[in-house]
Amino acid sequence: MTFEVTILGCGSATPQINRFPSAQILNYHERFFLIDCGEGTQIQMLRYNFKHQKIKHILISHLHGDHYLGLMGLISTMNLNGRTEELHLYGQPELMDIIEMQLKVSSTTLRYALVFHPLQHFQSQIIYDDGELEISTVILSHRIPCTGFLFREKKRLKNLDIKALKKYKIPISFYNDIKNGLPYVTDKGKTIENNILTIPQKTLRSYAYCSDTCYLPDMVPQLKQITLLYHEATFDSTLIERAKATFHSTAAQAASIAKQAQVKQLLLGHFSARYKNLDLLLQEAIPVFKQVQLAEEGKTYVIE
Amino acid sequence: MTFEVTILGCGSATPQINRFPSAQILNYHERFFLIDCGEGTQIQMLRYNFKHQKIKHILISHLHGDHYLGLMGLISTMNLNGRTEELHLYGQPELMDIIEMQLKVSSTTLRYALVFHPLQHFQSQIIYDDGELEISTVILSHRIPCTGFLFREKKRLKNLDIKALKKYKIPISFYNDIKNGLPYVTDKGKTIENNILTIPQKTLRSYAYCSDTCYLPDMVPQLKQITLLYHEATFDSTLIERAKATFHSTAAQAASIAKQAQVKQLLLGHFSARYKNLDLLLQEAIPVFKQVQLAEEGKTYVIE
Repeated sequence: MTFEVTILGCGSATPQINRFPSAQILNYHERFFLIDCGEGTQIQMLRYNFKHQKIKHILISHLHGDHYLGLMGLISTMNLNGRTEELHLYGQPELMDIIEMQLKVSSTTLRYALVFHPLQHFQSQIIYDDGELEISTVILSHRIPCTGFLFREKKRLKNLDIKALKKYKIPISFYNDIKNGLPYVTDKGKTIENNILTIPQKTLRSYAYCSDTCYLPDMVPQLKQITLLYHEATFDSTLIERAKATFHSTAAQAASIAKQAQVKQLLLGHFSARYKNLDLLLQEAIPVFKQVQLAEEGKTYVIE
Repeated sequence: MTFEVTILGCGSATPQINRFPSAQILNYHERFFLIDCGEGTQIQMLRYNFKHQKIKHILISHLHGDHYLGLMGLISTMNLNGRTEELHLYGQPELMDIIEMQLKVSSTTLRYALVFHPLQHFQSQIIYDDGELEISTVILSHRIPCTGFLFREKKRLKNLDIKALKKYKIPISFYNDIKNGLPYVTDKGKTIENNILTIPQKTLRSYAYCSDTCYLPDMVPQLKQITLLYHEATFDSTLIERAKATFHSTAAQAASIAKQAQVKQLLLGHFSARYKNLDLLLQEAIPVFKQVQLAEEGKTYVIE
C-alpha cells in the first residue's frame, strides 16, 4: 500500500522563484489528499506532472495567504476542466465564505459538488475515516486558528495463517473471530493464541503535517512514535525571539518535538525567504534529532 | 519620457507552466501601473527582476480569477516587506469586499494605506490624471462587468524656440501665452504664428488594454489612432461560436478592431491554454491588420 507525500511548496509567507508557499500531496494507496494550497499550487502540479483530477480531499491548515491563496484558482481550473466528481474541502469556517464570495462575483456555478467540512481549532477531531486511513486534526498554536493533520493507517483485520489453521484443525466458523484477534479454545479447553494462527501485521504507518505553529510540546502525546513528522522550521535559533513573536518555530525546536515524540523521521519545511541556503537549519536540527531531512520541492518522501 | 509595457502573463483562464494568467506593468516615465494581477504575478515579478515596491497603482479589469487572484498575495507581500507608501487600487466595487474579508480572517492590518477606487462598468470615466498622463476606462462586454484601460499622454505646454523669440524680440511677459499656444501680435499689428515661436511637439502616445471582451466595435471611437492596442485574442476563427458564447474574441476580430480604430500597433494576448503554438493566431490576424505581434511573457513593448 503506497503511503507517501510529495512536496509542491515548502516556503513561507513571501514566495521566491524556486520556493513556492505551502502545498503537498499525500498519496495513500492512490487516494490523494492536498494539504494546504498556497499561491501557484496548480502551476506546481503542472510542473511536477500531477493531475489535479486525482484529488478528492483538500485540507487547509489556516487562513494565512501562503496556505490557501492557490485554492480559488485550483477550484476554478477543476471546474473549467470539466470536473463532475465531488470535492471535499476541510478548513476554518470562514474559508467557505471567501470561496462563495469569489464564486459569486465571478458569476460561477461549479459543475461539481464542493463539500465543505468546517474544522474546530480548540480540540482535535477525526475528520476522515475510510476504514483503512484515519485523519485527525492536531491543534497548533499560531497567530490565528490553525490545525495540523495526522494521517494514521488503521488496524486492519488480521490475515489468517492457513497452514496453522489446518494444523490445529480450526473450524471455518471461527475464522472471523480469529481475523478479529481472538484466540481459539479447543474442545479440551486448550487455548491457542491468536498470533499462532495469524500472519504478523506490518507496523501501522502514520504522517503528521504541523505547520504553522510555535514550539508546542502539547502536541507530543498525539504524535507519539509516528512514522514521519513534517514540522515547520521557519527560522534558525538565532531568531528564536522572532519565532516566538510570530508564532513560528526554529529548526531546533522542530527537532525537539520530533525527539520528544520519538517519531521515526522528521521533515523540516516552511522556510523563511531569508535563507538562500538551508543547510544552517539542517545543521542545527541534527544534534537534537538525527533522522531529519529538509523538505525539497518536487520530491516524494515514502512513509515506511 | 519612457512609455512601455512589460508582459508578466498573457494566458487565459487555466494557467500553464510557461503561460501565466493576465498581468502587465505599464511604465510611464518611471510611474508604474500594474494592470491585472493573475495568480503567480508576484512570482513573475521576481522572475523578471521587477521590484513590486515601484508600483503605486493597480488596475483590475474584472473579477474573473485569472485577472485578480494574485492580488491578495501581492498586497500581503508588500506589507511583509515593509511597504508604508500608499497603494491605489482600481476595480469593481466587490474587489474591496474580497480583500477586506481576507485581511480580516488572516488578522492582518496593513502598514500602508490601500486606497480603493471603485470603477463603473456602464460608462467610461477618467480614473487618473497627473497632468502628463490620463487614464480612462474602456467599457468592454464580457460575462461579468469588465473595463479596459486607456492610457493617454496629455497635451503639455509648448517648448519655446529661444532663437525665434530673440529674432522677433518677444518680451518675456508674453512667454507664458506662447507656451499655452497663443500667437504673438507685434506693436504694428503683425501676427507671428505660435508654430514659428515654439518647437514642434512629438505626437502624443497612448496605450489601451482591452481584455476580456467579445468583439465590440463600440470601443472603436475611443481607441481611434492610439499608438498601441493590447486586445485579447483568446481563440482562433474556427472557434468563433465559442468566442461568442464565452464573451471572448478571435485573433481576426482583435485585428478588425485595430483596423477600424486605425491604431499604430496591435498586441494580441489572453491566449487559450489549448494553443501550444500561437502562430495560428498571428497568421489569422496579419491579413486583417499587418502591424500585429503576439504578446510574450517577460518582453517589454515600447509605445512610440
